[in-house]
Amino acid sequence: MGINTNSHMQIAVVGLGLMGSSIVVSLLASGHQVVALAPLPGEKEIAIKHIVGLLRHADDSNLLTKGLAASVQALKVTDDYQDIAPCKFVQECVIEDKDIKKIVYQRIADHVSEDTVIASNTSAIPISELQQFVPMPSRFIGVHWAEPAYMTRFLEVTCGEQTDMVVAEHVVQLGKNWGKEPTLLKKDIRGFITNRLMYAVYREALTLAERGDTTLEDADKIFRYDVGSWITLMGIFRRLDFVGFADYIPSFASLLKQLSNRSDVPLVMERMVAENARGIHNCKGLYPYSEQEAKAWEEAFAHFNKDIYELATQYGEQRLLEAIPYDVEEDKLYDVEEDKLSKI
Amino acid sequence: MGINTNSHMQIAVVGLGLMGSSIVVSLLASGHQVVALAPLPGEKEIAIKHIVGLLRHADDSNLLTKGLAASVQALKVTDDYQDIAPCKFVQECVIEDKDIKKIVYQRIADHVSEDTVIASNTSAIPISELQQFVPMPSRFIGVHWAEPAYMTRFLEVTCGEQTDMVVAEHVVQLGKNWGKEPTLLKKDIRGFITNRLMYAVYREALTLAERGDTTLEDADKIFRYDVGSWITLMGIFRRLDFVGFADYIPSFASLLKQLSNRSDVPLVMERMVAENARGIHNCKGLYPYSEQEAKAWEEAFAHFNKDIYELATQYGEQRLLEAIPYDVEEDKLYDVEEDKLSKI
Repeated sequence: MGINTNSHMQIAVVGLGLMGSSIVVSLLASGHQVVALAPLPGEKEIAIKHIVGLLRHADDSNLLTKGLAASVQALKVTDDYQDIAPCKFVQECVIEDKDIKKIVYQRIADHVSEDTVIASNTSAIPISELQQFVPMPSRFIGVHWAEPAYMTRFLEVTCGEQTDMVVAEHVVQLGKNWGKEPTLLKKDIRGFITNRLMYAVYREALTLAERGDTTLEDADKIFRYDVGSWITLMGIFRRLDFVGFADYIPSFASLLKQLSNRSDVPLVMERMVAENARGIHNCKGLYPYSEQEAKAWEEAFAHFNKDIYELATQYGEQRLLEAIPYDVEEDKLYDVEEDKLSKI
Repeated sequence: MGINTNSHMQIAVVGLGLMGSSIVVSLLASGHQVVALAPLPGEKEIAIKHIVGLLRHADDSNLLTKGLAASVQALKVTDDYQDIAPCKFVQECVIEDKDIKKIVYQRIADHVSEDTVIASNTSAIPISELQQFVPMPSRFIGVHWAEPAYMTRFLEVTCGEQTDMVVAEHVVQLGKNWGKEPTLLKKDIRGFITNRLMYAVYREALTLAERGDTTLEDADKIFRYDVGSWITLMGIFRRLDFVGFADYIPSFASLLKQLSNRSDVPLVMERMVAENARGIHNCKGLYPYSEQEAKAWEEAFAHFNKDIYELATQYGEQRLLEAIPYDVEEDKLYDVEEDKLSKI
């Protein structure tokens, strides 16, 4: 029932768009042999260029366990499904279209052995629906990555109704081997967890903005400078362990009643779609952009990603608790010398 | 009507608990003369120790414009309301108790001139209610800080019904002078913005956890490693400008219907209060803590704060756009040499 989780196993990635290419690099960085399959005509050549570029980027940040040359050696880019035959884990990341995914799964299943795990990167289509398209639904699972895959720790593992829990736990272990912090969703509720939590924020913020009570700019500032100042260290709920709980009961009691419960699509989102807004990609979005500004933001994100990834590494939970006992720096902080005091 | 916003003006801080002391240091760091008033018996001595400790911490991070010695010189810690007489801006941060705040405002008003702006750090009591306790409600406003005040950019400015908008805009300018990224809420809706957005997240996450669909640990991982990987750079809505909008309409249409609309207090919060849980402060919380672990988390936060503050400085919007034109590093990234390609 189990699956191999060692780093020498061969893994296939099917679909080599931005996300797929980035996943290929993450798997190479972890030391795997990777078969990267381009199912679309012409995709292979673009993907090779893109993957090699990303590999260099990963190498610049010392993320390639084996180094650049060996990582390139461990990669096979192909458009032939026969090449995925030896793979025991196949990560699908083609577009979010059920019919296309169905065809892709059939081709995959035609070429791999029955014990192969097939994982979808979908964040929109229920795993329980997709797993009906494969001959071994118990070995089908959602494995949802964040961009750039080799420089984020996010990995959302989602079971469909028929997914074998032993397979799920092995995939979680595999994710840990890849340096991720996998989450496991045992039931594929719509939108998984991430989207549901973010849509709860969108709903409230867009409603307040529509009513003129706030602006999107201010909502962004609040998340950048308040939430941003602790979220990478502790997440939502450990934060409450820092703040304490005394004030929360009255706040829950009074605030939940006032939050938006709407289910219609907020106006500004309708408008964005009507205007064919693609944000920084076509300089039309919630914020105005010149081409230079859009480029500057894109560049900034590439750099920021590396910085926040490294910061998160520094403050990983395991590292933090291994460092116990801490030194007494903070105590020293409050140990005031008399001469300083006398100046006040 | 206006208020002085220059850094030489004298500012009073009334209430010298953790938050008040931290605000004192932020104001000193910006070069102000500060009268720090301890309204509780015995609070003054503890506050002096605490403030000097924080000043050193701020100095270690080069945050004191005037340096440590001059900052100490610019501070007067007192328990005598007469000392606040020359101050044109008074920041109140006593406990969240309307009756106590009422008494404090009366004492403040008895000692300052009519044109003084009185600001409350409250995040729980409506500004419109509090401003009824002062003789000049048009010059009363909410100014809500985050901890540690000298090392965060968050500043939530909130008007009550009677607050003069000219005063509000001056306070926003004052906040900018303090190195903050102030947000302005023109109408004091309950919970202001930050709390409403976070309670929307709590509601959805706690509901999913109660149903067994996820765990608080996994919700935390998602925020640490997905949301955390971009929030400090771009906030909630600029993020959408990066992702594009095409997929959002169907997601809004299907997901909003499924989000929790409950208004009862989630069970786990009731339990925390019943158990007198104070999180890392008494090793009882949503997570288990040994004393050493609680201490390690507290230390980690002090260090993390400094790191994320500096990272946010690096990626401030103004700095980012001033840096245009960026160099072509990213283009180089994808400019693959032929010899690398041939190895694949």
